[in-house]
Amino acid sequence: MTPSQKKKVVESLPKLQIEVPSWGFADTGTRFGKFFQAASAIDTADKFADAGQVHAFTGCCPSVAVHVLWDFQPGEDPKAVARLARRKGVRIGSINPNVFQDQLYKLGSFANPDAGVRQTALDHVFDSIRIQNAVNSRYLSLWFADGTNYPGQDNIRTRKGYFEEALRATQKKLKGKQIVLVEYKPFEPAFYHTDIADWGMAYLLAKKAGPRAKVLVDTGHHYQTQNVEQIVALLLDEGMLGGFHFNDRRYADDDLTLGSLDPYQIFRIFHEIHSFAADSGKYPDIAYMVDQSHNLKPKIEATIQTVMTAQELWAKAALVDHKKLKGLQLKGDIVGAENLLKDAFSTDVRPGLATWRKKQGLAPDPLIAFRRSGYERQAARERTRRRKELGIVQGGSYA
Amino acid sequence: MTPSQKKKVVESLPKLQIEVPSWGFADTGTRFGKFFQAASAIDTADKFADAGQVHAFTGCCPSVAVHVLWDFQPGEDPKAVARLARRKGVRIGSINPNVFQDQLYKLGSFANPDAGVRQTALDHVFDSIRIQNAVNSRYLSLWFADGTNYPGQDNIRTRKGYFEEALRATQKKLKGKQIVLVEYKPFEPAFYHTDIADWGMAYLLAKKAGPRAKVLVDTGHHYQTQNVEQIVALLLDEGMLGGFHFNDRRYADDDLTLGSLDPYQIFRIFHEIHSFAADSGKYPDIAYMVDQSHNLKPKIEATIQTVMTAQELWAKAALVDHKKLKGLQLKGDIVGAENLLKDAFSTDVRPGLATWRKKQGLAPDPLIAFRRSGYERQAARERTRRRKELGIVQGGSYA
Amino acid sequence: MTPSQKKKVVESLPKLQIEVPSWGFADTGTRFGKFFQAASAIDTADKFADAGQVHAFTGCCPSVAVHVLWDFQPGEDPKAVARLARRKGVRIGSINPNVFQDQLYKLGSFANPDAGVRQTALDHVFDSIRIQNAVNSRYLSLWFADGTNYPGQDNIRTRKGYFEEALRATQKKLKGKQIVLVEYKPFEPAFYHTDIADWGMAYLLAKKAGPRAKVLVDTGHHYQTQNVEQIVALLLDEGMLGGFHFNDRRYADDDLTLGSLDPYQIFRIFHEIHSFAADSGKYPDIAYMVDQSHNLKPKIEATIQTVMTAQELWAKAALVDHKKLKGLQLKGDIVGAENLLKDAFSTDVRPGLATWRKKQGLAPDPLIAFRRSGYERQAARERTRRRKELGIVQGGSYA
Amino acid sequence: MTPSQKKKVVESLPKLQIEVPSWGFADTGTRFGKFFQAASAIDTADKFADAGQVHAFTGCCPSVAVHVLWDFQPGEDPKAVARLARRKGVRIGSINPNVFQDQLYKLGSFANPDAGVRQTALDHVFDSIRIQNAVNSRYLSLWFADGTNYPGQDNIRTRKGYFEEALRATQKKLKGKQIVLVEYKPFEPAFYHTDIADWGMAYLLAKKAGPRAKVLVDTGHHYQTQNVEQIVALLLDEGMLGGFHFNDRRYADDDLTLGSLDPYQIFRIFHEIHSFAADSGKYPDIAYMVDQSHNLKPKIEATIQTVMTAQELWAKAALVDHKKLKGLQLKGDIVGAENLLKDAFSTDVRPGLATWRKKQGLAPDPLIAFRRSGYERQAARERTRRRKELGIVQGGSYA
Repeated sequence: MTPSQKKKVVESLPKLQIEVPSWGFADTGTRFGKFFQAASAIDTADKFADAGQVHAFTGCCPSVAVHVLWDFQPGEDPKAVARLARRKGVRIGSINPNVFQDQLYKLGSFANPDAGVRQTALDHVFDSIRIQNAVNSRYLSLWFADGTNYPGQDNIRTRKGYFEEALRATQKKLKGKQIVLVEYKPFEPAFYHTDIADWGMAYLLAKKAGPRAKVLVDTGHHYQTQNVEQIVALLLDEGMLGGFHFNDRRYADDDLTLGSLDPYQIFRIFHEIHSFAADSGKYPDIAYMVDQSHNLKPKIEATIQTVMTAQELWAKAALVDHKKLKGLQLKGDIVGAENLLKDAFSTDVRPGLATWRKKQGLAPDPLIAFRRSGYERQAARERTRRRKELGIVQGGSYA
Repeated sequence: MTPSQKKKVVESLPKLQIEVPSWGFADTGTRFGKFFQAASAIDTADKFADAGQVHAFTGCCPSVAVHVLWDFQPGEDPKAVARLARRKGVRIGSINPNVFQDQLYKLGSFANPDAGVRQTALDHVFDSIRIQNAVNSRYLSLWFADGTNYPGQDNIRTRKGYFEEALRATQKKLKGKQIVLVEYKPFEPAFYHTDIADWGMAYLLAKKAGPRAKVLVDTGHHYQTQNVEQIVALLLDEGMLGGFHFNDRRYADDDLTLGSLDPYQIFRIFHEIHSFAADSGKYPDIAYMVDQSHNLKPKIEATIQTVMTAQELWAKAALVDHKKLKGLQLKGDIVGAENLLKDAFSTDVRPGLATWRKKQGLAPDPLIAFRRSGYERQAARERTRRRKELGIVQGGSYA
Repeated sequence: MTPSQKKKVVESLPKLQIEVPSWGFADTGTRFGKFFQAASAIDTADKFADAGQVHAFTGCCPSVAVHVLWDFQPGEDPKAVARLARRKGVRIGSINPNVFQDQLYKLGSFANPDAGVRQTALDHVFDSIRIQNAVNSRYLSLWFADGTNYPGQDNIRTRKGYFEEALRATQKKLKGKQIVLVEYKPFEPAFYHTDIADWGMAYLLAKKAGPRAKVLVDTGHHYQTQNVEQIVALLLDEGMLGGFHFNDRRYADDDLTLGSLDPYQIFRIFHEIHSFAADSGKYPDIAYMVDQSHNLKPKIEATIQTVMTAQELWAKAALVDHKKLKGLQLKGDIVGAENLLKDAFSTDVRPGLATWRKKQGLAPDPLIAFRRSGYERQAARERTRRRKELGIVQGGSYA
Repeated sequence: MTPSQKKKVVESLPKLQIEVPSWGFADTGTRFGKFFQAASAIDTADKFADAGQVHAFTGCCPSVAVHVLWDFQPGEDPKAVARLARRKGVRIGSINPNVFQDQLYKLGSFANPDAGVRQTALDHVFDSIRIQNAVNSRYLSLWFADGTNYPGQDNIRTRKGYFEEALRATQKKLKGKQIVLVEYKPFEPAFYHTDIADWGMAYLLAKKAGPRAKVLVDTGHHYQTQNVEQIVALLLDEGMLGGFHFNDRRYADDDLTLGSLDPYQIFRIFHEIHSFAADSGKYPDIAYMVDQSHNLKPKIEATIQTVMTAQELWAKAALVDHKKLKGLQLKGDIVGAENLLKDAFSTDVRPGLATWRKKQGLAPDPLIAFRRSGYERQAARERTRRRKELGIVQGGSYA
């Protein structure tokens, strides 16, 4: 890395603030069960504390995505939850309603054939907006499990109409700089059709909902072989990219740590963002968020590893010379243009990251520093004890 | 099949008129080569004659899609070509420009980094519209091979802008009931990114182009696992479905005969159309066209087989009782609702097809009747002789 | 359907006996949660009773696959469980060990890096074989969740060696006509690599294990686009096909009811079996089993629907004239050969099924008959009451 | 990069000798046509000359894969072709028969239903072995396009039997250290079933053929999501990995330059090879070959870029500390183990490559050096002139 490259790396990093999800510190699993970790978070306070660790060691994760059903108790003052977050060194970021867990959502939420259930779902989203207002959060982040499992189970067009209606009502409730993010996902838990299955459907619905609705790109929510960076470029061009859920996968929505399978793809996504910024003169106003399921890895370690990888790939992508690239593209020099990207990707930017961290008063390797801190061992001890006190029995069976 | 089912079948068939492609009667192959057939069409007259056979035996294929590069000689009067079609018992249907074959399109057509090439492509499309006007064709059908093979090769957003511009210019040239169809395809021949890769991109571009632009759904142009019938339902709901290219596939854009791999999927697509008609009171105004590559099968046989399969699946789907279905959907009776579709699919509608054919003065089994006609044997003899006279040498090598 | 076709249908059915899984009557779901059904089975007695219903109405499901962890209490006499089954009108079929649910299997079972865990898994399998002997069951059916989530997590070759060892030890314990089935699955719950990911790996391991080891084909455990019927044909040819787990899917291992998405594929699988029988003079000795997850559909209805669909597709495939097919294949008449299959598939064999059922003293439509029986309503009432008595609280959360 | 890392890099490189294909220097394309390059090779002498350039600048590509149909004229003395290669600075490597281009292979070669065609194909392979003997080549490399396009087209098991027979006959003809490589590919040009579709089928057939038959892994010939490095590890463990065809792809068999889409996957494949060597004490005896289709990129540039990328990824993978990795795997430290791989991948090894090249008397960046040499411009001029003299007309149309 040349000094000018190091400078580029250091200057690029402040533009990447990454939000981590509260649920990423709790035990999650597959339909076949969960493997429980002693140090995993029991409650919201634990989650904020863990997120606070991530921010303390990485310096770029000041906010935490919260989940209305799991992080706010009925009747609880949202401001109290916000204060709790601040005490743990973070603030509340995006607000995530849950309209998939309750039994009444068996046939859908916003698209349920039953008008009563649709209303219940909408009420929950309105409640979530009240929380959003109370904690002064910018993003309402919507993911819907809605869909069907079998041909004929429901009318696809009717359901689309229900979604248009409910999202319009949702968007109307927002004000100021608030944004509602519409996420798409091809399948799971629905296996025949998912009401918002791809970027096109999310785009269409967001457009119809109104100006405060944008599309959320979860990197793992795509068909095999789909060019995710093209979708990112397109949504940026349309002013419709609201944010990301970062993760990686090989097969389906595997929710692995970012860049663990295909780091070059993440690099190319970041390249499209840097390229957009180079062309438009400023970085787009989008939310960078993590959404992963750490079934096996220790939760905080996995999150720190994710953040470090994101920074590394972001910094590599910042090295591309966009003016030079344009020249090569116009000449049709495919090999030369491609090699500009390849060279940036081959460059070891970790010394640049270390320099930036030093400037922020951070350890050069956040993961090693965290491991040395002993936090996880202590959390494991304390939480194991607390589980016992609370009478929490962990288990569950596929069938 | 009950008498009332037979009635439904017979009544459903007039709504399905299928256009066959002129290029489907010529020799095609894979990048590894072509297997030549003695009876395959040499020129446009042959293609019209062969299409005339398909129509003569099936009674539902009155029009032929033509390909500007291959079916119209420079300087030739398009009306003469139209007359040729009529002499062979068919008429000209959709007009298909070609902006992928010429060497200058190596880096793209409408999205080529070179403004001169972009203009050449647009000029060819304008020429095609002149042909469209001359032969009084309703549909201008656009497929673009545009894309890149490598990351960095070109700027995705810039190319998107070029497409918006050129499609707007194209749409503007149309008048009356003319429609420009925008086709999408995930990959091939481009292997990194394709400028119009999915329905969302085609929809977006068609919307921007103007009211005479609609989306063309080629059944083989989707990502693995994508729910094609959902896309069809959605485009119908938006009034943006312009037409179909029928074919089947297992892997990529294999261009196999329709329904040869997954007939139930085609049935479900037809179900969405019948369902839309049931809800809206009339059948949508869309073009049903075939686009297949008969690498091994005899071309006319393969086309007749395709048309027969399309009719069979269309008729099966016409049996679904939409009112009953809605009731079951509202009750959440998943098994019951699904079985309405399954029962329709299990019903053997071939006697109904035979009845309809009889009414049209056709043989009950068009394929058997065509085989008996001896047309192919005669065409093989005649065309083999003609190839010799013309000095046509067939060959080609992968490398 | 001609009388000779009806005869073929009726004669084909006795060759298809289908085993249903005990766990298919219990509540299952996705990682996002379960939707509970009042009528779902609480315990093994319920499961046998429900399976008994399936057999009573379909007449072709005499045996039930049992799951060692869920159907046999520690210390319980397996023979007592077998008697319980008989009282409910069924018998115990394949024995399914469980080496994925316990916390100690976090890093694998037979391939765990820890020798102690590997031994525990093997001991459980040996215990299962003791149950197999006690209840006189022929099949030991093994599915392994073993794999890794991240590159580098473990040594792929070392794990392969562990599997070879443990499967050899397992096979050695069997005697007489007993068979151990080795199942493969590309992913889930492992997301980087699965130790037995495809048919080739299952074949290789079964071959090394010894003569009583065969491959189990779960129709939903394949890569997208993989030709499942070719794998079936190949394993038949090698004498290595031990049995099936029937289900359908669009995306991943969706475990939908058989034939709900792609019935023609199941037809083609059955065609390969009939074709093998035609060539070899007898039907292969394989186990036909169902493995589905009825997340939304009522369990018994879904199972009956599955069995009816299997019979229908089996009977359609039985109509293919293999001698005629061979002749067309030798002539290279692709359209003709394909149409033999298409015609069989288009034939409505349901009257033939009704005839066969009548002969067995069954209702012509098992699903309608079951619905009329009122069994589910009664089970819902009784089991709801029992859950209350047992203090069963149903719930669970993704995070 | 530390000095010890640089040492590892430099020491690792001699183990990677890469064979380039003669056909990679000729014009290739897709079924939609070829984009012709002025500098592309016209004949075998050109191909050897171009390969000679690749070797001259990279120093690690001493051999060239030849294609019997395209590189040996009927009646020509193979030794003369070998001498031609030597004059151009390379030697003949693997021998590649062609049993897919001729019209008689329409329904297959080794698996053709016609015994006469099967014999013709076998004769061609025997001829190829004679060439192999004459030029003292070690590898006979077999790829078969055999398969069917439609269900029912042919008998899968019968065809499997034909393949067993012909491959056994082929293997028997080899002697000494000669090896026959059996390649697999899921689809294209066959679209319903391919006779050798996956590694399991290639393995099975190679095993049956005899000890001189091994499996060839083409990196682009896999199902989406398949774990290629696991297949590599498994074949290494079985002693059945014969060699590689390197390329990259996103969708199908796109034949892009290696590592252009997913470099981390290639790194992981190389990691499995280094890991095997670490465990067994020596590097496996396998052939590293390139098989790409440079539709748009200049052929020699693309080949040099491929070779440089292969070296870079090979060197990165050589940095993994296998002893340390094993320790972390045994402890179940997933994050730590994974990070050993990630750290190696993040390391910029290009200075190490430059050091090695300097030692070989090569330019530090072969691509830049080649561009500066002016070879391509001169070849373009000379070959354009020669095409004119030879009356070569370049063209071709999809339909």
